[in-house]
Amino acid sequence: MIDPSLIESLKSLVEPGKVLTDASSLEAYGKDWTKQFPPAPSAIVFPKTIEEVQAIVRWANAHQVALVPSGGRTGLSAAAVAANGEVVVSFDYMNRILDFNEFDRTVLCQAGVVTEQLQNFAEEKGLYYPVDFASAGSSQIGGNIGTNAGGIKVIRYGMTRNWVAGLKVVTGAGEILELNKDLVKNATGYDLRQLFIGAEGTLGFVVEASMRLERTPKNLTAMVLGTPDLEAIMPVLHAFQGRIDLTAFEFFSDKALAKVLARGDVPPAFETDCPYYALLEFEASSEAVTEAALELFEYCMEQGWVLDGVMSQSEQQLQNLWKLREYISETISHWTPYKNDISVTIAKVPAFLKEIDAIVGEQYPDFEIVWFGHIGDGNLHLNILKPDAMPKEEFFAKCATVNKWVFETVQKYNGSISAEHGVGMTKRDYLGYSRSAEEIAVMKAIKAVFDPKGIMNPGKIFA
Amino acid sequence: MIDPSLIESLKSLVEPGKVLTDASSLEAYGKDWTKQFPPAPSAIVFPKTIEEVQAIVRWANAHQVALVPSGGRTGLSAAAVAANGEVVVSFDYMNRILDFNEFDRTVLCQAGVVTEQLQNFAEEKGLYYPVDFASAGSSQIGGNIGTNAGGIKVIRYGMTRNWVAGLKVVTGAGEILELNKDLVKNATGYDLRQLFIGAEGTLGFVVEASMRLERTPKNLTAMVLGTPDLEAIMPVLHAFQGRIDLTAFEFFSDKALAKVLARGDVPPAFETDCPYYALLEFEASSEAVTEAALELFEYCMEQGWVLDGVMSQSEQQLQNLWKLREYISETISHWTPYKNDISVTIAKVPAFLKEIDAIVGEQYPDFEIVWFGHIGDGNLHLNILKPDAMPKEEFFAKCATVNKWVFETVQKYNGSISAEHGVGMTKRDYLGYSRSAEEIAVMKAIKAVFDPKGIMNPGKIFA
Repeated sequence: MIDPSLIESLKSLVEPGKVLTDASSLEAYGKDWTKQFPPAPSAIVFPKTIEEVQAIVRWANAHQVALVPSGGRTGLSAAAVAANGEVVVSFDYMNRILDFNEFDRTVLCQAGVVTEQLQNFAEEKGLYYPVDFASAGSSQIGGNIGTNAGGIKVIRYGMTRNWVAGLKVVTGAGEILELNKDLVKNATGYDLRQLFIGAEGTLGFVVEASMRLERTPKNLTAMVLGTPDLEAIMPVLHAFQGRIDLTAFEFFSDKALAKVLARGDVPPAFETDCPYYALLEFEASSEAVTEAALELFEYCMEQGWVLDGVMSQSEQQLQNLWKLREYISETISHWTPYKNDISVTIAKVPAFLKEIDAIVGEQYPDFEIVWFGHIGDGNLHLNILKPDAMPKEEFFAKCATVNKWVFETVQKYNGSISAEHGVGMTKRDYLGYSRSAEEIAVMKAIKAVFDPKGIMNPGKIFA
Repeated sequence: MIDPSLIESLKSLVEPGKVLTDASSLEAYGKDWTKQFPPAPSAIVFPKTIEEVQAIVRWANAHQVALVPSGGRTGLSAAAVAANGEVVVSFDYMNRILDFNEFDRTVLCQAGVVTEQLQNFAEEKGLYYPVDFASAGSSQIGGNIGTNAGGIKVIRYGMTRNWVAGLKVVTGAGEILELNKDLVKNATGYDLRQLFIGAEGTLGFVVEASMRLERTPKNLTAMVLGTPDLEAIMPVLHAFQGRIDLTAFEFFSDKALAKVLARGDVPPAFETDCPYYALLEFEASSEAVTEAALELFEYCMEQGWVLDGVMSQSEQQLQNLWKLREYISETISHWTPYKNDISVTIAKVPAFLKEIDAIVGEQYPDFEIVWFGHIGDGNLHLNILKPDAMPKEEFFAKCATVNKWVFETVQKYNGSISAEHGVGMTKRDYLGYSRSAEEIAVMKAIKAVFDPKGIMNPGKIFA
């Protein structure tokens, strides 16, 4: 905990009432969606302007106080957890959309703008902000940028990185940098904007971001296809991508589907039982696209890659097919699942998944493994359900061993130990499975350039 | 010039005959397409493997020898010019495509693979490499990455940056880094790959790159539309982008068109004279798209934004419409043009262009200004033609003054002094018009992280 007199000097930098130190605020603002590290911040500060953020960072430099950025607190890697007496800088009061440029299709957002707020703003303008995920109702743009948030439309639209036209940041040294100025083409040296995207607040704070919007997709249509095995999903993806621009290509296993269907509130896609299912989505912008999709479906059936399938004929059917995939996470939460968010290149998915299945199945035959994820971009969500009879402690102890196997397998397959959730504190000690010692040394040196006193979210990404 | 005994030790690092010091090789490999700085390298070395590149970099570190990377030597900013006794590292013998992954649609290229070689390889695989520009027949992938090459399809496909799935680099410190490993989703700390893209070889050498391919576009169709003024191009762009995914949106002035038509080998698009023309292209993947394009055309006519227009009905007509735009550069080269490659945000293009026109027109009323460029991404090519009667020296002296006005206007409009050609040596001294002193200081510190001895392409981007 920092000295109380410092808290007083911090208060002088912001509006009255914008520094909180009560227990419930410290608890609420000191954590994200992870539960591994108990929150223990010294204070929460709520700046309202860029100048106030800069003053806070300069104050932290002067007094060697660690700062933790805080957005919607929906992170899944404990990157926004203050567990060591840090001062939390919340962007809740920097939540305004400042400007809209219709020809560039850019929206200037303060860091605390909520994802859904941007999505709704885009809709009002007849446009579309395509980065979407479960926490869109509370996550903030600053946090999305800090973690380079992904989600369910990455195969078509890419990660948050693709939608950042420009950034205004306050570096760890307290300097304000305006990065890229919303230009599409700008070949004037290193693109520093890219460094701040995915940096989890370790280099500085994003205070404003100019986000690009896109044409609204037309007549989105989904197919669910059942495959005889996981390998068959690959040629199906390949065949569809060759003719149609997919907006999503998700997969889930029969076990995942069974859990969702057991709820009783979602109709099955079709009757045929299959070990794996692909959910793909595209814009049926004309009859020709729909016809192409049906031709591809028949072709995949003929090849034996698909056993059965269905295509949505209405908005309601589209929603129902998506529920088969989207309800998985919530449904299996009942079993206190061990979860891991990992990725490999797309072609390696079947072999990688089988290897993990085999290791876990051999060592812990009573564990039920539920796979689902964004197969179109190689991002797998591994979920191991706790056997009902097994005490939590025993389950988590065994999962610690699973962790090691998973990361060793990730390393063997040249994959990523964190596909889209970030490193934070939860995966900090495993970073070496995905990044070399030389890379980590370089990253630390780059951090020192922007944050010479090491006050920006210390202990996140690397120790 | 470096010591002759050093050249001998350099020779021991590569295959026999792979170090050249003869005058014609020094002349040929010491330069790019710019002519401002006379080439004066000490030697040219041709590595064939990553290990040889690493050995050369370590040798350069040991002996404090400056290295200049050399690809297709088609650069337009003198970033690949060796004017100060440097050793040129040519990637001409690292020109193989090493691997293809059909499900990830990635191609593993050595740095010296020529752009067109990659484009042709993609075509053989039924796929498409979408970054395309005039020098595709000689430019190399390593150089494309070093400059983050753009071109004519950026509005749809983005810059080279978007197509780099993974990089293998040798840093200035002589370390080999494997960056991103071809993953779509990888949230494990700073994306160092992004730093090397557009770094003009100042941080290290790209030795291998995994490049993504895309579905081949179908039935590309172009429209040329004449507008009553420059402002009208903006709502036209806006209207089309709202309904159709454009693959290109170019513009040119009546003066540019007149020069091309005067050649006599390209038919005019239509008879109506207009001050500005837009060339837009899209995939006419179905009747519905073509109908939408025609509806939009009629709507733009009704609004008074378009005076006349034409849509290609065949591949031949598509080619002919593109010639109106693509022949400009070659056609005006007859007038020894002063050229500048600049960008602003799209909405600012009309005001920015008019301001430059006014300044130049007022000060030098005998100068003819020819504008064209990629208006869909804010990238303008400013060309001032030398009056026939004016001696070259006088013209270039006056253009130096123009340079200053242009960059001051760029700064005022928050634009970029180099949209897609890079900084190199030609724009090094003007970098401050686009990047702040704080940004430049940070860039230099980042360079020092990767290249502590300052041997990688010194004097490029910044002094």
